[in-house]
Amino acid sequence: MNVTSLIRRKRDGSELAAGEIENLIAGYSAGEVPDYQMAAFAMAVCVRGMTTDETAALTNAMLHSGQVMQWPGLDGPVVDKHSTGGIGDKVSLVLAPLLACEGLYVPMISGRGLGPTGGTLDKLEAIAGLRTNLSLEEVQRVTREVGCVITGATEGIAPADKKLYGLRDVTATVESIPLITASIMSKKLAEGLSALVLDVKFGSGAFMKNLDDARALARSLVATGERMGVKTSALLTDMNQPLGRMAGNAVEVQECTNTLKGSGPEDLVEVTLALGAELLRLADAGHDTAANIEKLQSHINSGAALEKFQQMIQAQHGDLNKLTPLAA
Amino acid sequence: MNVTSLIRRKRDGSELAAGEIENLIAGYSAGEVPDYQMAAFAMAVCVRGMTTDETAALTNAMLHSGQVMQWPGLDGPVVDKHSTGGIGDKVSLVLAPLLACEGLYVPMISGRGLGPTGGTLDKLEAIAGLRTNLSLEEVQRVTREVGCVITGATEGIAPADKKLYGLRDVTATVESIPLITASIMSKKLAEGLSALVLDVKFGSGAFMKNLDDARALARSLVATGERMGVKTSALLTDMNQPLGRMAGNAVEVQECTNTLKGSGPEDLVEVTLALGAELLRLADAGHDTAANIEKLQSHINSGAALEKFQQMIQAQHGDLNKLTPLAA
Repeated sequence: MNVTSLIRRKRDGSELAAGEIENLIAGYSAGEVPDYQMAAFAMAVCVRGMTTDETAALTNAMLHSGQVMQWPGLDGPVVDKHSTGGIGDKVSLVLAPLLACEGLYVPMISGRGLGPTGGTLDKLEAIAGLRTNLSLEEVQRVTREVGCVITGATEGIAPADKKLYGLRDVTATVESIPLITASIMSKKLAEGLSALVLDVKFGSGAFMKNLDDARALARSLVATGERMGVKTSALLTDMNQPLGRMAGNAVEVQECTNTLKGSGPEDLVEVTLALGAELLRLADAGHDTAANIEKLQSHINSGAALEKFQQMIQAQHGDLNKLTPLAA
Repeated sequence: MNVTSLIRRKRDGSELAAGEIENLIAGYSAGEVPDYQMAAFAMAVCVRGMTTDETAALTNAMLHSGQVMQWPGLDGPVVDKHSTGGIGDKVSLVLAPLLACEGLYVPMISGRGLGPTGGTLDKLEAIAGLRTNLSLEEVQRVTREVGCVITGATEGIAPADKKLYGLRDVTATVESIPLITASIMSKKLAEGLSALVLDVKFGSGAFMKNLDDARALARSLVATGERMGVKTSALLTDMNQPLGRMAGNAVEVQECTNTLKGSGPEDLVEVTLALGAELLRLADAGHDTAANIEKLQSHINSGAALEKFQQMIQAQHGDLNKLTPLAA
């Protein structure tokens, strides 16, 4: 592989072949392609963009730099939701148990905060004792036993993405839709999903400040998911105001348990149920949105969702009675 | 200095301040800015370009990463010619002694071949014993004593350019007019020139294959030279055919001595005299082109130019009677 010539072609706006992108990422993972060549390539991608085929090839290469979960013998679809993040966004903590109540499996690998937006892991860690560093085996076991889990990426998940993200962060190559797409999708698809819904947020409290950028990212994410054989759709949601009434790790967990008890803030409930209903549709578990929402709501009303949440926390060694206001 | 934010602004097409570019190059020279950040920056420049002010700032920063020659008490202007190179281009070897005969001083720092084009140093080294690794002190002494010298860049000349060029070569960031400009001009201006003429070649035997690219490079070089207080102009010359009849180091040296004896090939003589006449004009040593050409021609006719060439070779420890057909 002539890396320089490959960079040159991307610099000049050419489309690279899937095999070329795979070789580049394999070389980078193996330490054969140095950081400076990858930085020049990432900058060329930032400015010139990538086609859907190229983005899918990049996603695939990063996905297969690590382990991909398998789910032999499972009696329901494996699904997940990803959010681009926003202030007060605590949807994951409510949605995962709701979906599990409906017979779906949610092996959610989540991230830390980015900029002003708190990460799901940061919020969860406000619960005393709770582990977010589960091994791949633990993730699969808890998912099978409880129906849902929320944890951090292990070393084995898309290591090429981890390496590339560190480089992008210091070379001004974060803000690139194909690179963001490959980073998000390589980690999510490592969960071995059959369906994925994306919550792409726009507005002053989100990573994407305007609707056009958010729409372009949503399109890229959906096209890449579909190209890789996963039923994918995206909702664009407004982040000009924080979601819910609470922002802060411990108080957000409290707001989640309130929501699971049926007294959640309207906007949080609305977004959560909309995303959940869309996932049920994608997973062929119900094609009527209103009916899907009703099904999910019934698990709140019955107390099943709260119980599922408590089971998940317990399986991850957390104690919901002990919330640390200032979790690290 | 926030290097990432500086790269981001260039990525987005903003103009950087001179001080920012100076800090970036100083940091890179000092090893504080790593290669991967410089590679991302170079790629951003490749795609987004640079204004004349930015290119001049980059040139100035690379120039002042090393030593700049001073010429106190010299009784004539210090001038030079730079060629972008082409097959059979041996103009420097004829022009330097011609200009020296006219009372100009030519401390010519030359390069090696690039791609299919032979470098002036490679040609000169066909002369047995000839040294092209003169120290800065030697360059200045020979220039003062003989009037001209042709040698390679010392460690002290624009070290930031040397470091950056090595990186550009493996990151597909060579083909950028501002980066090429800064690379050429930082080395040339380190000679402490008052005038510089550029021979920008176009055509199948040149680095720039078409006239438009060559014209854009010429404009950038001239604008940068002028911005930095050096009288600069450029000639665009055709390189669709080799210059002269000889291509090959030793035979080209032979063709040069023949030219200095008055029996040179017409095209070589024409280009050499045109560049020389332009330099005399820039250096205020004569404003009539025809008269300037006549003056230079007279030094060929009198034998003075050949004698000057022999003096220069001797000062650089070469033996013109011993030409190595296959110099390394």
